[in-house]
Amino acid sequence: MIVALAGGVGGARLANGLAKLLAPEDLIIAVNVGDDFSHLGLSICPDIDTVTYTLAGLNDEQRGWGIRNETWSFMATLRQLGGPDWFALGDRDLAKHVLRTERLRAGESLTAITRDIARASGVAHVIIPVSDDPVRSIIQTDEGDLSFQDYFVRRRCEPLFGGIRYDGAAAATANPQLLAALANPALEAVVICPSNPILSIGPILAVPGVEESLRTARAPRIAVSPFIAGEAVKGPAAKIMRELGQSPGAGAIAEYYAGLVDVVVCDERDPAAGRVIGEVRMIAMDTLMQGPAGQQRLARECLAAAASLRR
Amino acid sequence: MIVALAGGVGGARLANGLAKLLAPEDLIIAVNVGDDFSHLGLSICPDIDTVTYTLAGLNDEQRGWGIRNETWSFMATLRQLGGPDWFALGDRDLAKHVLRTERLRAGESLTAITRDIARASGVAHVIIPVSDDPVRSIIQTDEGDLSFQDYFVRRRCEPLFGGIRYDGAAAATANPQLLAALANPALEAVVICPSNPILSIGPILAVPGVEESLRTARAPRIAVSPFIAGEAVKGPAAKIMRELGQSPGAGAIAEYYAGLVDVVVCDERDPAAGRVIGEVRMIAMDTLMQGPAGQQRLARECLAAAASLRR
Repeated sequence: MIVALAGGVGGARLANGLAKLLAPEDLIIAVNVGDDFSHLGLSICPDIDTVTYTLAGLNDEQRGWGIRNETWSFMATLRQLGGPDWFALGDRDLAKHVLRTERLRAGESLTAITRDIARASGVAHVIIPVSDDPVRSIIQTDEGDLSFQDYFVRRRCEPLFGGIRYDGAAAATANPQLLAALANPALEAVVICPSNPILSIGPILAVPGVEESLRTARAPRIAVSPFIAGEAVKGPAAKIMRELGQSPGAGAIAEYYAGLVDVVVCDERDPAAGRVIGEVRMIAMDTLMQGPAGQQRLARECLAAAASLRR
Repeated sequence: MIVALAGGVGGARLANGLAKLLAPEDLIIAVNVGDDFSHLGLSICPDIDTVTYTLAGLNDEQRGWGIRNETWSFMATLRQLGGPDWFALGDRDLAKHVLRTERLRAGESLTAITRDIARASGVAHVIIPVSDDPVRSIIQTDEGDLSFQDYFVRRRCEPLFGGIRYDGAAAATANPQLLAALANPALEAVVICPSNPILSIGPILAVPGVEESLRTARAPRIAVSPFIAGEAVKGPAAKIMRELGQSPGAGAIAEYYAGLVDVVVCDERDPAAGRVIGEVRMIAMDTLMQGPAGQQRLARECLAAAASLRR
């Protein structure tokens, strides 16, 4: 049994690699919900959707987000009608948002809805939100507090990042499937995917019980650094690190996850490669995942590293 | 000043003819809301949309409903995800439903939203819902009570029509713009468009104040029969009339609107053509509206008939 923690695109890619290697009953992918938001009355869960689309093979690799063969009639008409067009909603994507919103409003859990959408999309593996309760990442910037999507999409991460708050996290109940898996004696590894630690993994860890369970898990815990040569493959992780006065690299990842991981998998060119920071060992690999084959390769190497740590 | 009462496709066509002849300030089109319903959490107003699309020149003449150049990615994905697919929602159409739902939920009036959508669609004329309050047509059938869209779309009008109830109508407030126009000394005519009297005009008349205002209006009141040679050009009006034991034709229209209209414009081939039923005169015209030119022709003839009745 492997537990993966994942956020957006990078996380989804490694999660997909793991899913291609592991049977559905041997993998639980717990996904960030801090990016979730309500837009035009629709409940939108970007990270859950990215993971689901990636595992379903429906993701648009070129654009980097959303669904392949997407069409945009809705957005074109929304624009004509003077509606808000800063957040792109594809026609196919919308079906999921509308269905999910309707079921959430009827009182169903995000876990159940996510499971049904995954199954209907042909995904057999378990994708769960870290919590069925709302967690909302609020970015503290030089222009004041911004909701996540305001910062990330509308303002394109331009405001200076000063800090983050996970609204609702303290009152949220962790997904029992995640806590059970982390406490399961059969747990073989925890893999923190190369998602943005602050934006994507932070909200997962902020839900009561998750960080503690990770701290006390018996299985090897591995985090994969999202940084390659001081930059993130995708997203604002490096920019944010620099704005926090830190150096974007595996060293910062090791410090961020101190006490929660045994190993940080870092890129071969990372200056921290081979070092030990605190109690965290840096294992160098080629962390750039090129296509599904690259995703499987890195997943295989992570699982091998975890196996080598098991007593 | 002309007031038109309209429901779906036939009503929208004559309303469009009137709009092409009259300045925006000289026409108010009051539209049925009895077909409105909530589907997948979206507030859908089929008749308002049909009238708006028709006046905007965006309607799909071929299909008979919805918007031209529509795309169907949303529906295809909804179907894949196991969502309800009995009511077709086009990608472009959806933009309007989503915007309207969001604004209704924020407490805005259907009148204001309808106005804004019409303007954004390039429609200068006034299209108003008969009421901002919900009126819901319930069809009494041999299979029990069915909500309007259940009867009309899902069951394709197959169940035997036994009667209709306009839920919410008694408590609804009539649109003050409609009542003001009907009481306006400058009112020159009321035109009841060739919509289904029971399904489309009935819910308008059921809103307190509308029927009374029509009864006491000083201007000529004209209803256009939707029947040509015993059949409706579109929709189940003839089927319903027969199931109620009546003969689909202008005579039945004259009886339905007794006391509310001075004239029924009927098709030249209608057996009632030229007769007087109760106090209602039957004036025969070619009521088949072929294309925009046909819509304008019938509108012009109706306005001329009204003018000839004015003292």
